[in-house]
Amino acid sequence: MTMSPVITLTTDFGLSDGYVASVKGVILNINPKAVIVDISHSVESQNIVQAAFILSTVYSYFPNGTIHIVIVDPGVGSQRKAIILKTQAAYFLAPDNGVLSYIIDELSPLPASPSIPVSLRAELRKVTEGFEAVAITNAAFWRQPVSATFHGRDIFAPVAAHLSMGISIIQFGEPIDSLHVLPVSQPYHDSAGNLTGQILHIDSFGNLITNIRNSDLSLPEIIVDIKKRRIHGIHRFYAETEGLSAIMGSSGYLEIALSDGSAAMFLKAKAGDEVKLVGRHENIQDNFT
Amino acid sequence: MTMSPVITLTTDFGLSDGYVASVKGVILNINPKAVIVDISHSVESQNIVQAAFILSTVYSYFPNGTIHIVIVDPGVGSQRKAIILKTQAAYFLAPDNGVLSYIIDELSPLPASPSIPVSLRAELRKVTEGFEAVAITNAAFWRQPVSATFHGRDIFAPVAAHLSMGISIIQFGEPIDSLHVLPVSQPYHDSAGNLTGQILHIDSFGNLITNIRNSDLSLPEIIVDIKKRRIHGIHRFYAETEGLSAIMGSSGYLEIALSDGSAAMFLKAKAGDEVKLVGRHENIQDNFT
Amino acid sequence: MTMSPVITLTTDFGLSDGYVASVKGVILNINPKAVIVDISHSVESQNIVQAAFILSTVYSYFPNGTIHIVIVDPGVGSQRKAIILKTQAAYFLAPDNGVLSYIIDELSPLPASPSIPVSLRAELRKVTEGFEAVAITNAAFWRQPVSATFHGRDIFAPVAAHLSMGISIIQFGEPIDSLHVLPVSQPYHDSAGNLTGQILHIDSFGNLITNIRNSDLSLPEIIVDIKKRRIHGIHRFYAETEGLSAIMGSSGYLEIALSDGSAAMFLKAKAGDEVKLVGRHENIQDNFT
Repeated sequence: MTMSPVITLTTDFGLSDGYVASVKGVILNINPKAVIVDISHSVESQNIVQAAFILSTVYSYFPNGTIHIVIVDPGVGSQRKAIILKTQAAYFLAPDNGVLSYIIDELSPLPASPSIPVSLRAELRKVTEGFEAVAITNAAFWRQPVSATFHGRDIFAPVAAHLSMGISIIQFGEPIDSLHVLPVSQPYHDSAGNLTGQILHIDSFGNLITNIRNSDLSLPEIIVDIKKRRIHGIHRFYAETEGLSAIMGSSGYLEIALSDGSAAMFLKAKAGDEVKLVGRHENIQDNFT
Repeated sequence: MTMSPVITLTTDFGLSDGYVASVKGVILNINPKAVIVDISHSVESQNIVQAAFILSTVYSYFPNGTIHIVIVDPGVGSQRKAIILKTQAAYFLAPDNGVLSYIIDELSPLPASPSIPVSLRAELRKVTEGFEAVAITNAAFWRQPVSATFHGRDIFAPVAAHLSMGISIIQFGEPIDSLHVLPVSQPYHDSAGNLTGQILHIDSFGNLITNIRNSDLSLPEIIVDIKKRRIHGIHRFYAETEGLSAIMGSSGYLEIALSDGSAAMFLKAKAGDEVKLVGRHENIQDNFT
Repeated sequence: MTMSPVITLTTDFGLSDGYVASVKGVILNINPKAVIVDISHSVESQNIVQAAFILSTVYSYFPNGTIHIVIVDPGVGSQRKAIILKTQAAYFLAPDNGVLSYIIDELSPLPASPSIPVSLRAELRKVTEGFEAVAITNAAFWRQPVSATFHGRDIFAPVAAHLSMGISIIQFGEPIDSLHVLPVSQPYHDSAGNLTGQILHIDSFGNLITNIRNSDLSLPEIIVDIKKRRIHGIHRFYAETEGLSAIMGSSGYLEIALSDGSAAMFLKAKAGDEVKLVGRHENIQDNFT
């Protein structure tokens, strides 16, 4: 993998204080040629799941070798590890708290099962093929003094900047072979045979992004049930329909949208709410048999 | 016109999701030297008029040859065209839905008339002098697969990136000679002879930006009527006055401002509300005679 | 001091209009190699004190020679001066209205005194050692025509861009030796011997950042009184505690935080509210004796 000078930032810092700018200043101090791109700084405070999802829908559009810093870090200063994960596509710097769950799950998936307990506790998963990871322990690359509450500025930023200058990840700490992963929710077939998923994310248009993949939507006559409403058929784009509609979304997942409005407000929907694909389910590609 | 590596973005995507970052990632993947500048991502959802106005007040400050991407695109995926407009000053990539109305109107103005019906429906206007346009139809430059709902990422971003590397606009599609333009509201003289305009935009300070140009404000004794209030005289800057005042604004238009507060909230004003220049109107430069 | 191509922006412009983008366009027009970094554009409208504080917590992380533009400028267009301040660390371009108070105070501190009257009126202070200042008066570097209300775009942006290309600050105007400084609030010992400070800033997490420095917090058994609540001991990081806690903050100041929530909302606290270090005060490093 070639190194890229692009460094992205995904945080829950907001943009009103100077926290994000401090991180950028530290990076530019070390590598003046770094190209820094904001992914989002509006992740809800400490919402690891939301940050994990946003990152997963964006990282693949960046140049190979891009360095993605993700700082949603309620455990900052505690014993939680700070890690670098290197995949075929990119480098990820983050606390080892599950914020890279979608990235890791794509590379090292658990067998999907309807019985996965939904839990917010990240569990250790053994890393197998296709990636390399280190715990960031070599303080030689850190900004001193290291504050107890702002590792983004004092650890992640200088490590990312040095990494972008070509230093090998093994220089930054000890190799590790297990990472914390949140259970990534997968749609499953309920007892009636319907494919049952959930809302993963609500975007700023109020579109509901579900965990049902576009590739599960082969049938035009599909019926979607959500919040006691029924939607018939899948539309290709927003202007094609009026009212509530089911769309093959640009992130690769089924979306529920409202023309000229927010589906989330209209349906009073929130992340975690159930979505069902009803009928003709015998033809739906089934991952669980 | 020299090509510039600057690419600007004006969208209604917001900054909380990763949509804007996806667009930037695609651009940097193709042209790592592109300099990407955000104009605004807080355009109200699907508000084409607002995006058109914001762009019109900003584009001329950028280097000659800058590429401006504007994505407020309720018709994405439908038969609406995606276009490149090349002027003496810059390149504009946008859906052909009226979001470039101010740009086109400056270059190819309709005769101003008090009888222009205010309408939100963009109408086709023949392009005459001073610019060139193509419909983006050559899929060779697109990101594949093209999603039906995110042409910003899959069409506009890669086309802009290739354009910034010096590829001629004619490579991207078919020349066209008509573009959709919204009726750009112009002030007119009412039956009493007052110059009657309207509020075009409310900025984040709550200043009301009207469609009456500073060049119409030659008289110091001008009287402005707005929302049943009367303002005497034009001030040069905010600190010069107390309370409500009329200012020659930095965007080239008459602004109504409130010292230490939001004129919009104070007056309960909104875009489209009427503003009148009263009296001495016989001296006002008159575009309609 | 080496010149750096980094130019930062701190304003109260918000991000929804195109004002910030206009400033960036003007800079890139003059110096296409400038690296522009946003510090914050969400400073409350005309809140000079807030901008001064945010800048003071961030500027030192940027490369030596960075150019910081600060535009919170209620007096724009009036007789207030526009200035360039050059220190060992950086260049600052701002209206001379107190928005650089923390920077100037660090370099040329007044003797701290409990009797400093808190006031929002900036007063002239003689510049002594370690820095250089000019009033920006040479119109040759300005954008013409200069609007009366947007000096950020028409004066600060082009001056910063030319400065970033190596032009000496003396080319931009007349040397001055006095600058306006707001009284920077300092903690003081009250009659009972407690160190009494105040809340300087509330960040977007709802953490309360006080003016009591971490270096004043040498004792583990310190007691903090705020809004009629008492907090025992100082914690090192957020995850170490539950409920309300006092933290040695990453900006160098005592912070009050709430685990899993906003201390500001919980305590109904605002900037200016009193914070006391109680007890063992005889051991606290005392700046006032």
